[in-house]
Amino acid sequence: MNLPVPLNTFIGIIASLFSTLSLLPQLIKILKDRKAEDISIWMLLILFIGLGLWVYYGVLVKDPMIIIANSISVLINLLIIIFSIKYKPA
Amino acid sequence: MNLPVPLNTFIGIIASLFSTLSLLPQLIKILKDRKAEDISIWMLLILFIGLGLWVYYGVLVKDPMIIIANSISVLINLLIIIFSIKYKPA
Repeated sequence: MNLPVPLNTFIGIIASLFSTLSLLPQLIKILKDRKAEDISIWMLLILFIGLGLWVYYGVLVKDPMIIIANSISVLINLLIIIFSIKYKPA
Repeated sequence: MNLPVPLNTFIGIIASLFSTLSLLPQLIKILKDRKAEDISIWMLLILFIGLGLWVYYGVLVKDPMIIIANSISVLINLLIIIFSIKYKPA
């Protein structure tokens, strides 16, 4: 296979895409079902800190891919947190 | 602050720790509640592929941190998938 970039860069890009986009179906599900009872708010909060630190890491090593991918993840994760709290039983 | 490693390495390690450990509270919640109705199986499956590709990326760039952190994530994610399917209403 002829790749326009080295194999490791290519795999890194695809891995970023999958990791980043994985949060999207969860956001869609919450918006559709208006229910988030079974989702761990701790998972979301710890992930939020983790993703935020990855953005900071991207800034430190000046890697736009890491910054962009994790910024999108932080945003989707934040929306999931907001709607989880909104749709959680009191 | 005096760090034993450069700041970016330090932030990368903390970011890895948070991202990796974020899945743990979700696994614990599923085992406790025996319910996973609100969790998107698509999120789990896409994340599984993403994490698997990160392990492969770690192998390609020979980075033990990336390999170990993402292998742990793959394992926890796999357990969440198994118990999600087990506890999902048919």
